[in-house]
Amino acid sequence: MTFTPRTPRVVAARRLQRRRDRDRAGRFLAEGPQAVRSALLAGAVLELFGTPSALDRHAELAARAPQVSPVTDEALAALAETVQPQGLVAVCAQADVSLAEALAKRPRLVAVAAEIRDPGNAGTVLRTADAAGAGAVVFAGDAVDPYNGKCVRSSAGSLFHVDVVRAPLPVVDDLRAAGLQVLATTGHGDTDLDRLLDDRLLARPTAWLFGSEAHGLPEAVMAAADHRVRVPIYGGAESLNLAAAAAVCLYASARAQRQESLR
Amino acid sequence: MTFTPRTPRVVAARRLQRRRDRDRAGRFLAEGPQAVRSALLAGAVLELFGTPSALDRHAELAARAPQVSPVTDEALAALAETVQPQGLVAVCAQADVSLAEALAKRPRLVAVAAEIRDPGNAGTVLRTADAAGAGAVVFAGDAVDPYNGKCVRSSAGSLFHVDVVRAPLPVVDDLRAAGLQVLATTGHGDTDLDRLLDDRLLARPTAWLFGSEAHGLPEAVMAAADHRVRVPIYGGAESLNLAAAAAVCLYASARAQRQESLR
Repeated sequence: MTFTPRTPRVVAARRLQRRRDRDRAGRFLAEGPQAVRSALLAGAVLELFGTPSALDRHAELAARAPQVSPVTDEALAALAETVQPQGLVAVCAQADVSLAEALAKRPRLVAVAAEIRDPGNAGTVLRTADAAGAGAVVFAGDAVDPYNGKCVRSSAGSLFHVDVVRAPLPVVDDLRAAGLQVLATTGHGDTDLDRLLDDRLLARPTAWLFGSEAHGLPEAVMAAADHRVRVPIYGGAESLNLAAAAAVCLYASARAQRQESLR
Repeated sequence: MTFTPRTPRVVAARRLQRRRDRDRAGRFLAEGPQAVRSALLAGAVLELFGTPSALDRHAELAARAPQVSPVTDEALAALAETVQPQGLVAVCAQADVSLAEALAKRPRLVAVAAEIRDPGNAGTVLRTADAAGAGAVVFAGDAVDPYNGKCVRSSAGSLFHVDVVRAPLPVVDDLRAAGLQVLATTGHGDTDLDRLLDDRLLARPTAWLFGSEAHGLPEAVMAAADHRVRVPIYGGAESLNLAAAAAVCLYASARAQRQESLR
């Protein structure tokens, strides 16, 4: 039996495109083979919807899902938010942890997305933090829902690889109490990344705070951090975009920590 | 007199939203105060269109434009490609240079966007390369038009700060002849960025080649480069997005070159 857009299970799953329903159900949607594969490896998939041809093409994924539901092309289009979902959409269990739980594992690198409302930017920070080896990514304050469809897609699977935390905005004290130095990124810092590297400060366990491209970090967060850090601009650009700035900072830490551990 | 969407000068300017017309006229559009300011500083503005209130609000920009044309809200909406252009659109002269001309200045850092068709990604590479101090950005092969509206916007003014080059795909020999080592970015490199840094290879004058996120670099370009370089992935992510990878590579070079020059 192939489900249609009106089948109750499809109707219920489709509601997860809305934040309120995601929050209430503790579930969310992941679409496309790459995200579904990461979700399966993380044990997060509750039900896999797919067109018969996609389930056939990705038989190794379907074999690992606890429940597989074939759907019509119309039902898949209703479940998916992109034009080309490649035939697969999974209902997944939300698995974010508390800040205390994430910090108890003593991560040496943490990224904090503070009040970042653009889901593409937030997902990219998640992906970049994961690539740089961060143990946790904190969505602090009035940030986008990490389970927003566009955030899930931009994270390219990384949502399932690192500890994701949703927390109120004041996180700096907790981060510091967990042995992390707290570095706030800003265009007008009292120091810059080159100086931190020269002074060998980046080998320490570090939490990087990133604000939105439009508004930067809230003043109170900036003031609470150990340093306010500029990424140096060597040319005529006024600034870097968020993804680029996060990549430069997180990779600078990753390399400094690695060199220290080999010393 | 305030121009309407049917005023011939507005109609002619609006055609610049199409590549064919941009190529023919050697002109393009830049919208919003930030891009207009950079264009004015670069001497690229031919005519500034603005709503009366925007021209009033940005009187210091209007004062520097060689020709200022007030337009109705409707005419501005027709000229602009974004929903919130903030009242200003400038017709600018294209100013890309040949590869030979750019290399004659002996830049120590060059970014090559090879067959990158996404205008947002190409513009971000331009912005990031400018921030890292690159002297030139080469759009090679079947890449997006650097004067595409979305590319101009993503570049955040950097289109006007660095030498922009449009060239056929085989650029590696010319880059090397200009004294640059040529590094191709790929997920499957024979070396990685950490090793290049450890071996102090990044202090040399360098051209970085970036391919599209979907397809990577063309085989022939990859083979012609001096090294095929991975950005190390320390966590579970499969890869970085293009903006993040470009930022990590270009900033690694910028720092290594700077350290060398201070030695």
